[in-house]
Amino acid sequence: MPSYVRMSRNTTELFSEIAGRSRVVVENITPQVDAGRFPIKRVVGDSVAVEADVFGDGHDIVAAALLHRFGDGGEWHHSVMRPLVNDRWTGEFPVDQVGEYQYKIAGWVDRFGTWKRDLAKRIAAGQDVAVELLVGADLVHAAVETAQGRDREYLAEWDHRLRGDRARQQPREIAESEELSSLMSRWHRPVATSESRTLTATVDRPLASFSAWYEMFPRSAGKNGKHGTLKDVEARLPYVASMGFDVLYIPPIHPVGRAHRKGRNNAEQAVPDDVGSPWGIGSEDGGHKSIHPSLGTMDDFQSLVRTAQGHGLELALDIAFQCSPDHPYVREHPEWFRKRPDGTIQYAENPPKKYQDIYPLDFETDAWESLWQELKSIFLFWIDRGIRIFRVDNPHTKPLPFWEWVIGEIRRDHPDVLFLAEAFTRPKIMYRLAKAGFSQSYTYFAWRDTKWELTKYFTDLTQTSLREFFRPNLWPNTPDILPESLQFGGRPVFMTRLVLAATLAGNYGIYGPPFEHGWSIPREPGSEEYLNSEKYQLHQHDLERPDSLKDFIARVNEIRRGSPALAHRGVLKFHEAENEQVICYSRTAPDQSDIVLVVVNLDPHHRQSAWVTLPMEELGLPIDRPYQMHDLLTDARYLWHGNRNYIELEPASGPAHIFRIRRRSRSERDFEYYL
Amino acid sequence: MPSYVRMSRNTTELFSEIAGRSRVVVENITPQVDAGRFPIKRVVGDSVAVEADVFGDGHDIVAAALLHRFGDGGEWHHSVMRPLVNDRWTGEFPVDQVGEYQYKIAGWVDRFGTWKRDLAKRIAAGQDVAVELLVGADLVHAAVETAQGRDREYLAEWDHRLRGDRARQQPREIAESEELSSLMSRWHRPVATSESRTLTATVDRPLASFSAWYEMFPRSAGKNGKHGTLKDVEARLPYVASMGFDVLYIPPIHPVGRAHRKGRNNAEQAVPDDVGSPWGIGSEDGGHKSIHPSLGTMDDFQSLVRTAQGHGLELALDIAFQCSPDHPYVREHPEWFRKRPDGTIQYAENPPKKYQDIYPLDFETDAWESLWQELKSIFLFWIDRGIRIFRVDNPHTKPLPFWEWVIGEIRRDHPDVLFLAEAFTRPKIMYRLAKAGFSQSYTYFAWRDTKWELTKYFTDLTQTSLREFFRPNLWPNTPDILPESLQFGGRPVFMTRLVLAATLAGNYGIYGPPFEHGWSIPREPGSEEYLNSEKYQLHQHDLERPDSLKDFIARVNEIRRGSPALAHRGVLKFHEAENEQVICYSRTAPDQSDIVLVVVNLDPHHRQSAWVTLPMEELGLPIDRPYQMHDLLTDARYLWHGNRNYIELEPASGPAHIFRIRRRSRSERDFEYYL
Repeated sequence: MPSYVRMSRNTTELFSEIAGRSRVVVENITPQVDAGRFPIKRVVGDSVAVEADVFGDGHDIVAAALLHRFGDGGEWHHSVMRPLVNDRWTGEFPVDQVGEYQYKIAGWVDRFGTWKRDLAKRIAAGQDVAVELLVGADLVHAAVETAQGRDREYLAEWDHRLRGDRARQQPREIAESEELSSLMSRWHRPVATSESRTLTATVDRPLASFSAWYEMFPRSAGKNGKHGTLKDVEARLPYVASMGFDVLYIPPIHPVGRAHRKGRNNAEQAVPDDVGSPWGIGSEDGGHKSIHPSLGTMDDFQSLVRTAQGHGLELALDIAFQCSPDHPYVREHPEWFRKRPDGTIQYAENPPKKYQDIYPLDFETDAWESLWQELKSIFLFWIDRGIRIFRVDNPHTKPLPFWEWVIGEIRRDHPDVLFLAEAFTRPKIMYRLAKAGFSQSYTYFAWRDTKWELTKYFTDLTQTSLREFFRPNLWPNTPDILPESLQFGGRPVFMTRLVLAATLAGNYGIYGPPFEHGWSIPREPGSEEYLNSEKYQLHQHDLERPDSLKDFIARVNEIRRGSPALAHRGVLKFHEAENEQVICYSRTAPDQSDIVLVVVNLDPHHRQSAWVTLPMEELGLPIDRPYQMHDLLTDARYLWHGNRNYIELEPASGPAHIFRIRRRSRSERDFEYYL
Repeated sequence: MPSYVRMSRNTTELFSEIAGRSRVVVENITPQVDAGRFPIKRVVGDSVAVEADVFGDGHDIVAAALLHRFGDGGEWHHSVMRPLVNDRWTGEFPVDQVGEYQYKIAGWVDRFGTWKRDLAKRIAAGQDVAVELLVGADLVHAAVETAQGRDREYLAEWDHRLRGDRARQQPREIAESEELSSLMSRWHRPVATSESRTLTATVDRPLASFSAWYEMFPRSAGKNGKHGTLKDVEARLPYVASMGFDVLYIPPIHPVGRAHRKGRNNAEQAVPDDVGSPWGIGSEDGGHKSIHPSLGTMDDFQSLVRTAQGHGLELALDIAFQCSPDHPYVREHPEWFRKRPDGTIQYAENPPKKYQDIYPLDFETDAWESLWQELKSIFLFWIDRGIRIFRVDNPHTKPLPFWEWVIGEIRRDHPDVLFLAEAFTRPKIMYRLAKAGFSQSYTYFAWRDTKWELTKYFTDLTQTSLREFFRPNLWPNTPDILPESLQFGGRPVFMTRLVLAATLAGNYGIYGPPFEHGWSIPREPGSEEYLNSEKYQLHQHDLERPDSLKDFIARVNEIRRGSPALAHRGVLKFHEAENEQVICYSRTAPDQSDIVLVVVNLDPHHRQSAWVTLPMEELGLPIDRPYQMHDLLTDARYLWHGNRNYIELEPASGPAHIFRIRRRSRSERDFEYYL
C-alpha cells in the first residue's frame, strides 16, 4: 500500500496543515444516505460500488482511491478508482463480515502521470526535453526516499538513468516505460491528498436481504381443542420447513393481561374462557421477559429455538412495547406511564376509540433514560436465549430517536441481530425507521393490487435511493390484514399474491395456516379483520386439507432458493404486456447468469392473454434464433422468438408463470433439449 | 416570539439533555447545497422559500417553525410553517440585507393542538370529557407560568374556567375557542424541540442576479491612433450608458510585460510598437496594484470610477493571477514560482504549447500562505479604490480551496463585492467554483446555438439545484471567443444572440464595440479568435457607424429594465414551436403580474414560421376570448386566440419578438385599446 494511504488525514486536519496545496475536490459520492447521516445497508458477500466526482484545477491529471475498513479503527485498505466520464470516478470494495464498514475517497494530483503525459506530447512535437527529463528525475528521486525493498533500488536506477545521456537521446523509452509507471504508482507520494468525509455501511448477514417468513400463533398449534404450547410448535416445525421457509415468526409469547381483556372478534368483554390478545402483554405471571404459562417454560422455548435451527428455521420474536394494565411495570414503574388528572393511568386511544386493555409507555416521561435502558434489556434478554431476529410491533408509535439508539446499542455487541419494522404508516416515517436501523420493513404490498400500483411502487423501492436502506418484506396477509383482494379472488388470487410477494423482493412472508388454507372471510363487510381472528381465540388447523396451497408454496420457495436472479441482488425490471390485467417483469442476476421472467394474470376470474415485449439486447437474448422459456412452476418449456411473444393465463389452472430464460449455450443440457 | 425559540439549542446539545423526549424528525430540507456544505445564494429583496419533511411518531399533531437570522450571532426570528401534503412543510423568510443569513427548522409535538383535536372528537362521540378538561387545564396552567403581560392573566382565567362546572356542561365552547388557541400558540412550550442543522444563505445586492455588462479595451478608446487612456474611457461612458448597461468591465489595466511579449495576432515576436496582451501582467512599472503608465494615473482611475457611477455604471476590474517574466513578484518572491532543474522559472504550458510570456503562480509552493495573503491583498487594494466587482480570469487554473478562502475572507468585511468566474471548463469545475463563492459564472451559451441545445442547457440551469448557487452570465462574444455562429449569420444573428442572452437569464454581457459593429472575421478559418484581436493591438472604433446595433441594444436593455418577468426571479419555461428553427419561451414574474414571451428565428438566412402552443391555464390566459401580444421591440400589437398561434419571422427585418402578454384587465390602458 502506498504510504499516502497510511498517512491520510481527514479534511479538517488537512486544512490547517496543507490545504493550500490540496488541489483536488471529491464530492457527490454515491451511495450515501442523507449526506452520510445514516449508513447504507449491505449483506455479507455484496460489494459496494462507489462513485464520486473527483477533479482539480488546471490541466493536471488527478487520481483517486477508494478507502475502506471494517469497524472504526484499524488500517484503511485502498483500491484504485477508475474514471468514467465527465469527472465521475468509480471503484468498489467487498464486504465479507457482519458489522459496520467505513469508506471514503481520496483524490490527489498525479504529478508523475501528468509529467509522463506531457513528456510524450513534447517528444511528439519534436521538442528538446533535456530539462523535462531532469524534472522527472527529481520526481523519481523523491520516490526513492519513500520506497522500500527492491523497488528502492529499481527507482534509484531510474533516477540515475533519467539524468544520463541515453535518456536524452532516447526519451521515448522513458515516456513509454511501463516499469517506471508501475514503480511510481507504488511509491510516488502526492504533495497533498484531499479526502471525503467518512461514510458508513451496515453489513448484515445474508438473511437480512433474502428470507421467507412464516408467521403462526403458537397457541393454535394444539390438538383436541387444547391451548397450543411451544412443544406443539416444535412438532409443527417439519411442516413449516417442508414449505421452504427460513424464518418462523411467532406473535408475543408473554403472559396475557386480564384487565379489560378483549373477547373473540375483539369483543369489549371477554368471557372466562377467552384467551385474549397476545399483544395485551403482562399479568401477574410476568411481562416482556416471561412466557405465558399455558405456552410452556423457558426450557421449552430454548428447545424450540434449537430444534428450529435443525430444520433450517430461525425463530423470530415479536417485540411489542406496550403493557396490559396487569403488567408488572405498571406497579413497579408508574413513572413510565402517563397519569391523568384523576389519578388513573392513560390507556391507549385513537379518539374517540379507546383501548383500555393497553397502557402505552410514556416516552415523554422524565424517567425516559431508565425506560430506554429497560426496553433495551428486553432485547438482550431474548438475545441471551438464542433469538437473533425481532419483528417489532408498531415502531412508528415510539420515538424515532429511541429506535436509532436501541438498535445501535444492540448491534454494537450483536451485529448479527435483525429487526423487522411492522410500521404501516405514512411513507416518510417508514423510511426513517429504516434509516434509524431496522433491517427490514413491512410495506404497502398488501394494498398494491393493480399493475399500475405494483409497477409504480416497486420501481420506487428498487430504483431510487430507497434501495440503499429500505429492505421491503412483502406480506400478502397478516393477522391484522386480510386485504380486500384476498376476500374475493379465491384460490387463484392466493397463488398470484404469493408469486408476486416471493419474486418482487428478496424478503416476503405469509401468515399461516390461514394463507395456505385460503381464509378469506372478514369479520364484517368492508373490514380487513379476519372473522374469528386468531388474535382473540384459538384455532386448530387441519394441515392435510386437500385444498392446501402448501405444495405450491413449497415449489415457489424452492424456485426462489435455486435462483440467483431472485436473490436480493437480482435487478427488477418491468416489461410491457399489452393487457392491464397481465403484469410482466424480469429479475436478472448481476452477472447475467440467471434471468427469471415472471408473468402474472392479476384477474382471478378470467383467462387473460397478452403480447409481452422484452428488451432483447438488455437481456442478452438472440434476435435471430429462438430461445427457451422454462416455466419453473410447471416444468413446461416454450420456444420464444424475437421480442414479442404471446402469453395466455387461465386463473384456475395456472395464473402465473415463473420462467427461467434459457439462452442457447454449449451446456449438455441445452444440447439435449435442442436435439 | 414564544419562549421555545429563544431557548432553542442545537441537536447535539438536545441529545445529551432531552433527546429521549424529542419526538419529531426534521429532514430533507430544501433549498440547500450539498447538505449545507455550501450556502445557497439570494439577493436583497428575495424571500427564501424553505421546505422540509417534519413528522413524529404516533398520532400526535406536530408543528414546525422556520428560524432565521442575519449573520451568525444574535436572535433567531421565527415564522410558522404550514403543512403541504405527505409530511412536507413550507415556510419562508425575507432577506433584506447584504451578507450571510442562517436558517434552520424546529419541529415539536403540539400537545395542546392534539388535545384540542381529540377533545372535539370525544365530544362528537358523546363521551364524558371531565377528565380531559382537567388534562387541558394542566396544559394551560403550564403556559401561565411562561406567559407575560396580559396574556398571563387571560391564561390564568382559562385555567380556572377549564376546571369549572360550566366547562363540563358546555365543553364545545372550550374545544372551539379561538382565543384559547391563540393564547396557547403564543405561550404553550413544547416538551422537546428537534432542530435541523443550520444552513446558510449568501445574500448579494440585486446586481448579482440582474445585470447587463459591457466589456471594452481602455487602450482602444483613444483617438487619432493614440493609445487610449482612462480619461478616454471616461469620455466613452455616455455612449455605454446610453445603451442601458449596468456594468463596465475593462480588461487588466496593469503594466504590460516586455519579455516574450506577443505581437499582433498572437505573433511570437512583438515588434517595437506592439502593445502586448493586457493579461501579460507586470513590468518594471509595477504589477497587479499598478496602472499601466500609458493608461494614466491612479487619480484618473478613481475619477473614472466616480464618473461611471454618475452614469449609472459600475466599473468591474479584471483579476488575472499570472505574471509576465518582468513582474516584480518574480524578483521579490521567487518562492511563489516553480523552478525548473536548469534554474529557469517554469512558464505556462499546455504541452506541446508554450506560453513563455506568462509565469503561472505555483500554488503547490511551501510558501502558499504568503502567496494567498498577497493575492487577497490585490483584491483589497482595488476595493479600497472603489471597486466592488471583479471578473476573475481563468479561476479554474487555481486551486478551488483558494477561491473558497479568498472570497470568504473578502466578503466577510465587504459583503457587497461580487465575483464573476471566467471559467470555460468542464461543468463540474464550473459549478464547484460557483459553490466556492463566485457570484456569477460565464457559461457555454456562446456555443449553444440550436433550439435543442438552448432548451436543454437552460432547463438544466434553471430547473435543477444549480439555480440555488450558479448564476449564469451570458456572453455572445468575448475578446477570446468569436463563436462560429457570429462568423456566418450577419446582422440577424447578432440581433438574435443579443435577444437570447438578454432574456434567457438575469445576467448577460457583450464585448464591444466589436459586438455592436458586427465583427465576424476570425484570425483563420475554424478559429474562434478575432482577426486583429484587440488583445494584441489597439483599435479605434467609429461609434457612429450607421450599421451599429447600439440602438437595438439600447431597446433590449430598456425592455429588460422595465420587465419584472425578465428580472432574475422571472421563471423560464420553453414552449412548443413546430419548427426546429424557431425557439419560444416565456418568463413569468413570480406574482404573474408580468409575462414576457420571446420568439426567435434561429435561422439568420431564411424566413421561418411556426405554430406556437402556449399553456393557457398556467399563463392565466383566457380560452374564450382574444388576448393581446405586445411586441416590445417594435411596439406592434397582435390579437391572439386560444393556445395555438402563428408566428413568422424574417431575419432581415426582425428575427425576434419580445412580447409582453397583455391579459384583459380593467386598466384604463387596456380599455382604451379594446375600445
